[in-house]
Amino acid sequence: MKQLSDVQVTIVGLGLMGGSLAGALRGKCRRVVGVTRRTEPIDIALGRGFIDWGTTDMAEGVHEADVVILATPVRVILRQMHEIAPFLPEGCLLMDLGSTKGRVVTEMEQLPNHVQPLGGHPMCGKEKSGIEAADPALYRGCTFILSPLKRTSQEALALGRALAEAVGANPLVIEPERQDYIVAAVSHLPYLLACALVATADATVSADPAAWEVVATGYRSTSRLAGSDVTMMIDILLTNREEVLKALDTYQARLRELIRLLETADEEKMQAVLGVIRETRRKMYPASQQVIE
Amino acid sequence: MKQLSDVQVTIVGLGLMGGSLAGALRGKCRRVVGVTRRTEPIDIALGRGFIDWGTTDMAEGVHEADVVILATPVRVILRQMHEIAPFLPEGCLLMDLGSTKGRVVTEMEQLPNHVQPLGGHPMCGKEKSGIEAADPALYRGCTFILSPLKRTSQEALALGRALAEAVGANPLVIEPERQDYIVAAVSHLPYLLACALVATADATVSADPAAWEVVATGYRSTSRLAGSDVTMMIDILLTNREEVLKALDTYQARLRELIRLLETADEEKMQAVLGVIRETRRKMYPASQQVIE
Repeated sequence: MKQLSDVQVTIVGLGLMGGSLAGALRGKCRRVVGVTRRTEPIDIALGRGFIDWGTTDMAEGVHEADVVILATPVRVILRQMHEIAPFLPEGCLLMDLGSTKGRVVTEMEQLPNHVQPLGGHPMCGKEKSGIEAADPALYRGCTFILSPLKRTSQEALALGRALAEAVGANPLVIEPERQDYIVAAVSHLPYLLACALVATADATVSADPAAWEVVATGYRSTSRLAGSDVTMMIDILLTNREEVLKALDTYQARLRELIRLLETADEEKMQAVLGVIRETRRKMYPASQQVIE
Repeated sequence: MKQLSDVQVTIVGLGLMGGSLAGALRGKCRRVVGVTRRTEPIDIALGRGFIDWGTTDMAEGVHEADVVILATPVRVILRQMHEIAPFLPEGCLLMDLGSTKGRVVTEMEQLPNHVQPLGGHPMCGKEKSGIEAADPALYRGCTFILSPLKRTSQEALALGRALAEAVGANPLVIEPERQDYIVAAVSHLPYLLACALVATADATVSADPAAWEVVATGYRSTSRLAGSDVTMMIDILLTNREEVLKALDTYQARLRELIRLLETADEEKMQAVLGVIRETRRKMYPASQQVIE
């Protein structure tokens, strides 16, 4: 079985995710190679010591790789995997870092037999994007979802796990549909709520200069995700549309229940409903973790 | 004009807000007195050095005060101000820390002439409540809204300002209706969104043990306010019901617009709308502040 320390890892796309992963892997495997469309990210990645070598030539970048990681938007991944497959050596592990897994894994089924495909989704990020925002510590402590296919060998999965652990993440194997269902509710839905909140503030109080002096930390937290990279989020939303729309349906129903309670000023029921919600949130985050909020 | 250093400040209610204020004021004025229903918070406040003296007897606690601060829930404030008014010395400044100001200030109009009323609302807090969670640093850097009445003297307002500044806050004078309109959108609305999000996660993915391993920092931020003290939030929501319901109306409309864009997969329009929202959020929080998110 291949050891991570012996392999060449080629990362396609040196944005926030790819650049951070390169920096975290450098020195932990034989060679880290970066492939991008433009030369600028390569120069920055070389300057920051994130990669051993970089190229804008896809075939050249991947033909000696033991592991190739697609760190591009989901809809680019869907196309790119087929473009690079002919250049991959026998048994090469092909992973991605896309935030939705259903379509990626379905597409991976079509890859030629010499490729070992593995869906990947590290649950980390930042509001800033690009190689400038990259940080080798980004993956530390985060959950790194792995979605193997039936055809994925145990060795390939083990190498994927080793890679996730090498960058400080906790690998978690989940089926693609289950991951898409979960992240719709805990990641994509919160983004849209934050956006609607910012749009509401913008449409109402933001004209009052006092509004921004009054803003408390609560608004800041609740609206944080609205600062996410738009192109990335659209890619995610459109490749997980059905699950996100279902989550939005449930959310709207829950919100309408809260509104009804407020309209009727049913204090006893409010106490019960909001009390259960508070307890639910507290159980999600044990006391030891609450300090860093 | 009275100097803050010469006055006795009596704080009614030694929970998170009152206890923290007491601790922040101690040593900056002649004497800090705490009044509570039960003796336990007094013992804790004395033990932590937050007050010079405490009592469960309201009349005894306020009759020598130059400043009395009601740090109780809004609907308790509405009643309490009338109960204590007869015991207040001539010219005593009576402030509150309630999160909604319309009803408080209207009620303050009815106070006898020997009282100097001033609405107050410090824009800070924590998810934890009670004297145990109190922290003299709580007010540092926060906006402290002051809503004077027509009858409030310039001296009384100046003393209120001095008090806010003494605890490290930035005083901001706003009319009560304007403050209620603003906080509905930037504080009370975010609380309800966070609650609906937690309820959604609870009704859908939370049965899957993987869900909580997958939860990213985004969900954590967006849902944070759902951990707020329920009794306090109900008090706030019910005393600012009309403004909160109006903000919810606008919010639901904005959310429906986003849902429609996703349903029709109108990528160009999504890019435009979400791009404007992202820019709006970025302008609210200059780059220098984004690190601490």
